[in-house]
Amino acid sequence: MSDKKVSRPCHHCKSRSASVPSDTSKIHYEKFWLYRHCSSVQQRDRQAQKAGQLFSGLLAMNVVFLGSAFISSMIFNKVAITLADVWILLSILKVLCLFWIIYYLMGTSRQPHAVLYRDSHAGAIWVRGSVLLFGSCSILLNVFQIGYSTVLVHCKSKVEIVFPIIGILFICTQAYFLWHHSKDCIQVQHNFTRCGLMVTIATNLLLWLLAVTNDTLHMEIESQLREVEQRFAGNETTLCTCPNTTICKVFQKGYILLYPFNTEYCLVCCSVLYVMWKNVGRRISHHHILNTKPKFKLQGVVFGPLLGTSAVIIGACVFMMYQIQATSLDPSRQVLVIYYSYYIVLLPLMSVGAVIGTIIHALEKKELDTLKNPTRSLDVVLLMGAALGQIGMSYFSIVALVATDPSDLLNSLALSYSVLLIFQNITQNVFVIDGLHRRHVVAAAEAKHAGHSGQDTVAAEMPGEEETTLSGKQEHSQTPPGKEEDTKEEQNREAYSQRRVSVLELGQEIRKASLSYIHTYSHLSWKRRVLREISFFLVLCNIILWVMPTFGAHPLFENGMERSFYGYSTWFVIVNFGLPLGVFYRMHSVGGLLEVYVTA
Amino acid sequence: MSDKKVSRPCHHCKSRSASVPSDTSKIHYEKFWLYRHCSSVQQRDRQAQKAGQLFSGLLAMNVVFLGSAFISSMIFNKVAITLADVWILLSILKVLCLFWIIYYLMGTSRQPHAVLYRDSHAGAIWVRGSVLLFGSCSILLNVFQIGYSTVLVHCKSKVEIVFPIIGILFICTQAYFLWHHSKDCIQVQHNFTRCGLMVTIATNLLLWLLAVTNDTLHMEIESQLREVEQRFAGNETTLCTCPNTTICKVFQKGYILLYPFNTEYCLVCCSVLYVMWKNVGRRISHHHILNTKPKFKLQGVVFGPLLGTSAVIIGACVFMMYQIQATSLDPSRQVLVIYYSYYIVLLPLMSVGAVIGTIIHALEKKELDTLKNPTRSLDVVLLMGAALGQIGMSYFSIVALVATDPSDLLNSLALSYSVLLIFQNITQNVFVIDGLHRRHVVAAAEAKHAGHSGQDTVAAEMPGEEETTLSGKQEHSQTPPGKEEDTKEEQNREAYSQRRVSVLELGQEIRKASLSYIHTYSHLSWKRRVLREISFFLVLCNIILWVMPTFGAHPLFENGMERSFYGYSTWFVIVNFGLPLGVFYRMHSVGGLLEVYVTA
Repeated sequence: MSDKKVSRPCHHCKSRSASVPSDTSKIHYEKFWLYRHCSSVQQRDRQAQKAGQLFSGLLAMNVVFLGSAFISSMIFNKVAITLADVWILLSILKVLCLFWIIYYLMGTSRQPHAVLYRDSHAGAIWVRGSVLLFGSCSILLNVFQIGYSTVLVHCKSKVEIVFPIIGILFICTQAYFLWHHSKDCIQVQHNFTRCGLMVTIATNLLLWLLAVTNDTLHMEIESQLREVEQRFAGNETTLCTCPNTTICKVFQKGYILLYPFNTEYCLVCCSVLYVMWKNVGRRISHHHILNTKPKFKLQGVVFGPLLGTSAVIIGACVFMMYQIQATSLDPSRQVLVIYYSYYIVLLPLMSVGAVIGTIIHALEKKELDTLKNPTRSLDVVLLMGAALGQIGMSYFSIVALVATDPSDLLNSLALSYSVLLIFQNITQNVFVIDGLHRRHVVAAAEAKHAGHSGQDTVAAEMPGEEETTLSGKQEHSQTPPGKEEDTKEEQNREAYSQRRVSVLELGQEIRKASLSYIHTYSHLSWKRRVLREISFFLVLCNIILWVMPTFGAHPLFENGMERSFYGYSTWFVIVNFGLPLGVFYRMHSVGGLLEVYVTA
Repeated sequence: MSDKKVSRPCHHCKSRSASVPSDTSKIHYEKFWLYRHCSSVQQRDRQAQKAGQLFSGLLAMNVVFLGSAFISSMIFNKVAITLADVWILLSILKVLCLFWIIYYLMGTSRQPHAVLYRDSHAGAIWVRGSVLLFGSCSILLNVFQIGYSTVLVHCKSKVEIVFPIIGILFICTQAYFLWHHSKDCIQVQHNFTRCGLMVTIATNLLLWLLAVTNDTLHMEIESQLREVEQRFAGNETTLCTCPNTTICKVFQKGYILLYPFNTEYCLVCCSVLYVMWKNVGRRISHHHILNTKPKFKLQGVVFGPLLGTSAVIIGACVFMMYQIQATSLDPSRQVLVIYYSYYIVLLPLMSVGAVIGTIIHALEKKELDTLKNPTRSLDVVLLMGAALGQIGMSYFSIVALVATDPSDLLNSLALSYSVLLIFQNITQNVFVIDGLHRRHVVAAAEAKHAGHSGQDTVAAEMPGEEETTLSGKQEHSQTPPGKEEDTKEEQNREAYSQRRVSVLELGQEIRKASLSYIHTYSHLSWKRRVLREISFFLVLCNIILWVMPTFGAHPLFENGMERSFYGYSTWFVIVNFGLPLGVFYRMHSVGGLLEVYVTA
């Protein structure tokens, strides 16, 4: 790309030492040959940013299309393009990404003034934690794959040992990179970094696509053992079956069990990398940096955890019953009835919780946070996008069930399951999206507090009005704390402000006292408590709803109703694209709900 | 939806007469029960707008999913869900849309202060023209369908005459609505209007989806006559074949010929309706309204039209040869070679033109227009999105051709065709997107001019510096005209400014003279002329590349190479989604390029 040259590091800046980020001389404004004649530096910078995003996006689009064509060719024409060809392409991409990541770690990020700002919203601990968790699972998966290939080395090509090794290297480096640099707003080599990030995103997307289409194997093993044997016979592994040794069976079983984590890992990495891509060249105002994240505290919630834990325990029992029955090749109707009944009880509870939460959000006099925040925008898009998978599947299921025989018990159960699932997804999305846009009370109080520190004496002498006007001047989008409570609790506040006046002479201690009071106080508000109960309950529910399909409960596939309606291959395609998205949706909801819980 | 009540018309405003739009008392700020406690009216308004968009979007999503599930069921399970069921669903949706459109025309838009602002960018004449054109073709299509069903009334159900009648009503009303109201920024009944628009968009999308999947019929008639007969035999028209009368053949042929226009009509309507949806509740500043559209003038271009016309003529010949050969059931290799050769000559020319155009854009010292403009944002998204169809198909084709036998003449031709197509699409997109963001010179001059009208005497007395400072103050994002030319033409400008000083005493005439001079001058600039030549050439090329696949030249399907590689059904799905998008891309490019031509 011709723009790489323009974005090379500014060498004359190297001599300077890194100090305050607000120094404008350290900002590398972006340039682009297309936009040399803009009147202002800011405008040129913005346009260059857009152009850089366009070009790197085009690069990624081409890579993704090429890879998809490869993968589709492999699926539909097993002779001309084999799995090995796809692996070679992906390995080349992985090696390219590895080189770029290493260059980023060694070169780009160590340049002077490379990372002046860090996006506090990006790379939340739960996201980075899941990168590590899923990353380790994926590494284990690759280890099992190596072991499996080694056992069967007599009939498998040695290349099948090389690919997983490259995979392990890629996963480790990427996880390290994301753990340490996911918050970076890189200010040098903009376009090169964008291209690198986009190629990495494309690689992860292709790995996901391959995993989804290859998940075929796993699901078929579970549901249609006979057909698999036929397919295997037609495949390259004609005479290559696992000998009856324990180690080979362990490798095989571990491989099947760990497979879903690999798909999740790719999706999570994509979302983190995308936020990094959006943050390239972003300059964050001081206002943003101030807004620190609150910590997770398990305080003042009782019913949510109780209800949620019971849902998890019952769900685990149902899941185990289902798994024992489902693996016995001929799943009985009874276990499906139990499975659906569990969902039909749980889903309305979750929906009601989400609706109540949304209503409380509306009742609460909390300000909305309308600042720019790429992480949140992405969260919203991902929530809506991932929900589409589940909702789409449900609609397909509804049409099939209504068209066949809705009066049958199992059909009517499956029907209500699908309808409730749509309703639950939508209500939960509205609740989470709305919650993510509410400002955190304590953070707002702390921000106000920080604003005061310069005017200690003035603030101490005029406690009432001064507080509101000052904070109003400094940060117009924040609420004075007086607005946070409703009229019913007015007296409580008066007592608080009187007590504040009485401790006027304590000087430095006053701030600590008021802060701890706000803390205690906020725990007293019934609205906040209900919000926390609801979000905690939903977190636990989403965890169990995430675990069940991840580890192999796919009633939509195993009940056979939709399968016989749409035909095997069509329904297979629908489920194979809907299910991984549904699983990702649950995982992503957990993150969003945790954020709602913490900021409530 | 619970928010309908909130957004009901403000009745106490009815007594007032409509006057200047800047009167804030006439603005209906949006409200939403979720966001009652925002500190400022503006913030609440913005949040209510977002919430309204979210809810109406969710509504549309549900409708689209339900409809897609219906259509898929029809395709994969012809017994349970028939085409008639799908038509009933679509007719219900159409009737709902009809009611809403009539309510909008009679009720909403006639309320006081309902349409305070009109988006000058929305509903460009070429868009509305294509709505009318494609709308009339779709009406004709429905007429043919009625005729066809009437001829075969003995074996077809009478419902098949009712559906097209509803279709005609829907198309007429929608075309009238879009012709007159596509520029509206409606300020009352926000959420109800949003929902109505979204349901209409969903209906059009479903009609498109049905048309695309039903296009099967048409394409199979062209390419695999025998198989069609078998399918017809298996379908409801078992004994229902066209008798050998001329009128029946005419109806059938007209139906096949007009089919593609129907799909285009749906897509164009969707894009216009989407812009209207984005414009609901939008308040446009005076600055925006000022920016009038320049008129289309065929002046000062010679080579573009010449080259383009010859490309069109040659293309028409190639197309006719192709069609005559292709309909003879056994298309020879020769005609495919001619077809591919034509593309291989034309596409590099177009790419080179687009690249040169982009470079000239970069050389030109023109300001960028960074104002908010939903129409342009949509244009960019649609250009990129529609190109994906073509690019995706090309990549699939490339992989198939490389994997089979790239040394064969026809294969290598098809290969270069695909590669060149990707390159052409990308370069053209960059050129058009970049061009759409450049400010129109004459418009800028006129805007400046309008800014002057208040300070007539001052401006007349101090012609040189005053002009720049005044316009700089009033509209900081506009360029003074002195910046538009490069150093080589400096002398010319000096002569111009000297001449202006000498005519100082002419007062009123000076503005006219200078304006006409800018006009003449702009025609002299070689850069603008080259830009116009290129965009005119590209317009004509895109028209011929649009006509050829629209009227049935589908070499990607008829050459049989990719079809045998991926298998019939897979390749059919790929082509059936890629081709209509590719056709839409060409049509949309013509619009974008015309805009670039006009503003150059």
